[in-house]
Amino acid sequence: MAEPTTATGGLLAAIAGTGRDAVRGGYSRPVFSTAERDLVSWYEAELTARGLEPETDRNGIVWAWWNPAGLPLEGAVVTGSHLDSVPGGGAFDGPLGVASALRALDLLRGRGVEPARPLGLAVFPEEEGSRFGVACLGSRLLTGAVTAERALNLTDPDGNTFADVARRAGLDPAGFGRDEEALARIGVFVELHVEQGRGLVDLDAPVAVASSILGHGRWRFSVHGQGNHAGTTLLDDRRDPLLAASRVVVAVREVAAANPGTRATVGRLQPVPGGTNVIASRVDLWLDVRHPDDAVTAAVVAEISRWAVELAAGEGCTVDVREESLSPTVDFDPALARRLGATLGGVPALATGAGHDAGVLAAHVPTAMLFTRNPTGVSHSPEEFCTDDDAEAGSVALADVLADLLR
Amino acid sequence: MAEPTTATGGLLAAIAGTGRDAVRGGYSRPVFSTAERDLVSWYEAELTARGLEPETDRNGIVWAWWNPAGLPLEGAVVTGSHLDSVPGGGAFDGPLGVASALRALDLLRGRGVEPARPLGLAVFPEEEGSRFGVACLGSRLLTGAVTAERALNLTDPDGNTFADVARRAGLDPAGFGRDEEALARIGVFVELHVEQGRGLVDLDAPVAVASSILGHGRWRFSVHGQGNHAGTTLLDDRRDPLLAASRVVVAVREVAAANPGTRATVGRLQPVPGGTNVIASRVDLWLDVRHPDDAVTAAVVAEISRWAVELAAGEGCTVDVREESLSPTVDFDPALARRLGATLGGVPALATGAGHDAGVLAAHVPTAMLFTRNPTGVSHSPEEFCTDDDAEAGSVALADVLADLLR
Repeated sequence: MAEPTTATGGLLAAIAGTGRDAVRGGYSRPVFSTAERDLVSWYEAELTARGLEPETDRNGIVWAWWNPAGLPLEGAVVTGSHLDSVPGGGAFDGPLGVASALRALDLLRGRGVEPARPLGLAVFPEEEGSRFGVACLGSRLLTGAVTAERALNLTDPDGNTFADVARRAGLDPAGFGRDEEALARIGVFVELHVEQGRGLVDLDAPVAVASSILGHGRWRFSVHGQGNHAGTTLLDDRRDPLLAASRVVVAVREVAAANPGTRATVGRLQPVPGGTNVIASRVDLWLDVRHPDDAVTAAVVAEISRWAVELAAGEGCTVDVREESLSPTVDFDPALARRLGATLGGVPALATGAGHDAGVLAAHVPTAMLFTRNPTGVSHSPEEFCTDDDAEAGSVALADVLADLLR
Repeated sequence: MAEPTTATGGLLAAIAGTGRDAVRGGYSRPVFSTAERDLVSWYEAELTARGLEPETDRNGIVWAWWNPAGLPLEGAVVTGSHLDSVPGGGAFDGPLGVASALRALDLLRGRGVEPARPLGLAVFPEEEGSRFGVACLGSRLLTGAVTAERALNLTDPDGNTFADVARRAGLDPAGFGRDEEALARIGVFVELHVEQGRGLVDLDAPVAVASSILGHGRWRFSVHGQGNHAGTTLLDDRRDPLLAASRVVVAVREVAAANPGTRATVGRLQPVPGGTNVIASRVDLWLDVRHPDDAVTAAVVAEISRWAVELAAGEGCTVDVREESLSPTVDFDPALARRLGATLGGVPALATGAGHDAGVLAAHVPTAMLFTRNPTGVSHSPEEFCTDDDAEAGSVALADVLADLLR
């Protein structure tokens, strides 16, 4: 088969207009939104154009298999990523890994590779957790790290349950949950992702192999006060949860700064009802904490929670804290990482603070990641970037790695 | 004509199901939303059932005239209120004044009153400013307190301009602006409103006459930082506008507490993009400040603005501050208030911290307000309340006052 003509950048160009966010900038492609479904349709058309048959499993993961020899699927080599985005995110977080998987397949065929194992391509839903609050929801359902019962009752910001939204997307809520058969098909998983920091910029290299993912959790703090009129309620009569929540945000930074290596963030905060002339009745805020040492993460969250209770009480408010997700630090399979490094001729090894479906799968199967250079070092933002040359270098590296694993 | 049978509470019962907010509780009826338009349709049907002809003027104000003698409309007696609500607001803020106007008309007719001046009923759009940010937008447009150019460029939280939304509601954007003809028709304006504090509860009385409205302004603070990934960005590399904004919210309370009599509130705050795993790139927050002395309001906002610049700079952020509305303290026409008090047999006089269309009109025509008791003292919240008996007592008082003014 001749070398196909569409390079990675060209694949991405086809979806550059999908899900743009005119208010925030960048892209908003929440799972099961029109934008994200349009991307899935694009992806399925790309698979079909390559003679592959896309199929959506009972957890909403889209699979396709390159299996010219008709081998059993168990223990296959699998690559892929996700198509959903954070609100106002970049063009590459997720789609670069999906486009690189397609491109790597084209390159392998162009080279005349005859795979000794099937190659699977996978796209996972709700990797960002930006709609239902739990990151890597698809891979967590697949592996049982999240129960179907919990997932189905998650709600989006408009109050829709995951069950209802999934049903409207054509999925059967009764089918969600750990999928032994699907898991057994993954012999090894490799995810390519745009880098989300400045590691490769500083090293002046286009591609790296991942060494580890920082432990990472999300907690929702709900601060309860009393809604009232901003003009008629004296300061002394107020139980203002936004004032309490603001004190909590400041405490988050202070506790994080006192525990070196901690990354603690409040990026989402919603006063309810959120009117200009209304003292809020409740404020929900989400805390994201990451540290290489899981014990430090736990201690930081416990300390912030204690502060939150005290700061809320100081404003006549109460607070409840709920863990939405918690992922321990993941060290990727060292032997697999060494094998990738050897295949690629000694590219750098980088740790990352970002969570990925690969991190969830790493607890179950040998898993590796490749990172492609991001010249801004910025991610989850319209500033996230990847040059066409680097995107193609990433796909070539992925093809090299897959060719080795498919032997 | 016989006494009509639907009392004020019965009128309100007909709209108790419209615009309920399942997420926040209470009602969300933003201007030109389906819910608010449904209320306007209900109101127009009530007018039509009374033989009145509703007409929407070029600023979106719905007028109707009881003018059995066919007198010129100039210098009429006008009563009315609004139908829009804050997000998650109560059932009475606005609709009580509208229902009471209908009920008062029924009572006047039932009493056989023959008006020596026309009686106008008016419903004003966007009193709360909860969609486009400027409170009393309809009356401000009518009086020229806001220019049409500024109003048309206001945007709602989804980025829609007032011009576009008004056009879709069937209004002509070219028609907005000061309306001399409509103003000339208002000889005196009386607005009935649910009380938004505990004044009448503490005085054990169902109805009061308003003495004044606290000076009141809204300012939007936009704090600009750098959006980035919550996991991959070290604390020292962050320019986090939500941390800066939280420090500003704390400063707002401190400055207000240091200036006795000040009511300063941040009830609306929006991180952009607002993802859990995303350091925000920008945070918009709205400051509401009220004080009887307009000079104190100005000084408080200036001090908060200075703090905001300094606190933002401390986080590597910048801030810009924009005044969205400013209303000086309004003392209602003292002679008119005395006349209402005499008619009603010495009911209490109360000041309020809440803004109203009556406060805007007071700069142009003799204006008065009646307040009806709110047993919770809470407003802009589902807890806002008014008993059927008090609602009817308010309508009877309004009818008494109008009967006197229509002589």
